[in-house]
Amino acid sequence: MALPLLQVALDNFSLSDALESTRLLAPELDVIEAGTLLCLATGAESIKALRTLYPDNKIVADLKIVDAGGELANMACTNGADWVTVMCNAANATKAKAVEAAEKLGGEMQVELFGNWTFEEAEEWKKIGLKQVIYHQSRDALNAGGSWGEENMKVVKRLAEMGFEVSVTGGLTIDVLKLFKGIPVKCFIAGRNLRNPADPAAEARAWKAEIKKYWSE
Amino acid sequence: MALPLLQVALDNFSLSDALESTRLLAPELDVIEAGTLLCLATGAESIKALRTLYPDNKIVADLKIVDAGGELANMACTNGADWVTVMCNAANATKAKAVEAAEKLGGEMQVELFGNWTFEEAEEWKKIGLKQVIYHQSRDALNAGGSWGEENMKVVKRLAEMGFEVSVTGGLTIDVLKLFKGIPVKCFIAGRNLRNPADPAAEARAWKAEIKKYWSE
Repeated sequence: MALPLLQVALDNFSLSDALESTRLLAPELDVIEAGTLLCLATGAESIKALRTLYPDNKIVADLKIVDAGGELANMACTNGADWVTVMCNAANATKAKAVEAAEKLGGEMQVELFGNWTFEEAEEWKKIGLKQVIYHQSRDALNAGGSWGEENMKVVKRLAEMGFEVSVTGGLTIDVLKLFKGIPVKCFIAGRNLRNPADPAAEARAWKAEIKKYWSE
Repeated sequence: MALPLLQVALDNFSLSDALESTRLLAPELDVIEAGTLLCLATGAESIKALRTLYPDNKIVADLKIVDAGGELANMACTNGADWVTVMCNAANATKAKAVEAAEKLGGEMQVELFGNWTFEEAEEWKKIGLKQVIYHQSRDALNAGGSWGEENMKVVKRLAEMGFEVSVTGGLTIDVLKLFKGIPVKCFIAGRNLRNPADPAAEARAWKAEIKKYWSE
């Protein structure tokens, strides 16, 4: 089973705040995400800046596309994104256009799971050519008392068994990672829990070590 | 029945492109929307520029929030948005935080209807304090052959009867407006069909006249 990757989500309101994190974290992890907050606050220039600064990392544009799939995927990939997010409840026509636009530029779309969706719908996404999904616990739902448990793991596992590369996000801490043991997680995504420790680089190294511990046995 | 308002959606990739439309359209219509495309391409500065230029129009930030409701609503309203969109499939905790943040700054949230949702869920939104919904036909779905019909009207009507202020959008043309006759539409929202005619101001005046014709009988 391949080692899960580690991704930092930059949900900052300014590019300089984001760069304060990436300056320390970029060498320690695999994927750098221009978060929805950062994109909406600062625009596509942030995607381009991250691409320019970090040629060795994968760059994600977390646009959470729900419409105008072709235009937005094209914009993100033109500015250097490798992966771009589309919401599960976007029309399949939107997803298809996004896939087409992204692939034309060497990029890949990721379906973000949110609210109501079904495994039957997920089968449709595969037919459209979508290879990646992101299993997401809402920040606000977690704040309201939710947490990671057996039910979540079942869903992640089933999606992986369907053939999707599954990334997971939402309130992840280093202690939560081992709950996913035995599941081929594509990527663990964390924001403040990687950015906010006093020594973010050491924190990222600890997460990578934890991943290696549970995925190389 | 109050006259429906008219709203232009600015789905441009640059602020200057958007301003080329608003320079002509702003005096002719009621609401100016910083579209998702514009926000993702240029960031919050576009919302602020529109607020500064057009103190007499309502300004909408079409952020399509699905998470971090408080932070994003606060960002939009701090930059001058009157109304901000949140997706129907966002967690109710996200919606609640967005409502709280927007209202603190004199703003209002709008729930954008997309994909799967139920009227039971809509009742919950009312309890959270959401007053506005946007009934949306996806651009990509319309391109794939969809259109406005009796089924859509029934849904819009029922939402209005539930007490929501209902705006409608998605491939609207001047000829479609009369289909909504008898329904208290809050706002008709159009993008390219208002921006792209040779004389956008004349087009907006024609839409306003059509609205007056069918809502003042």
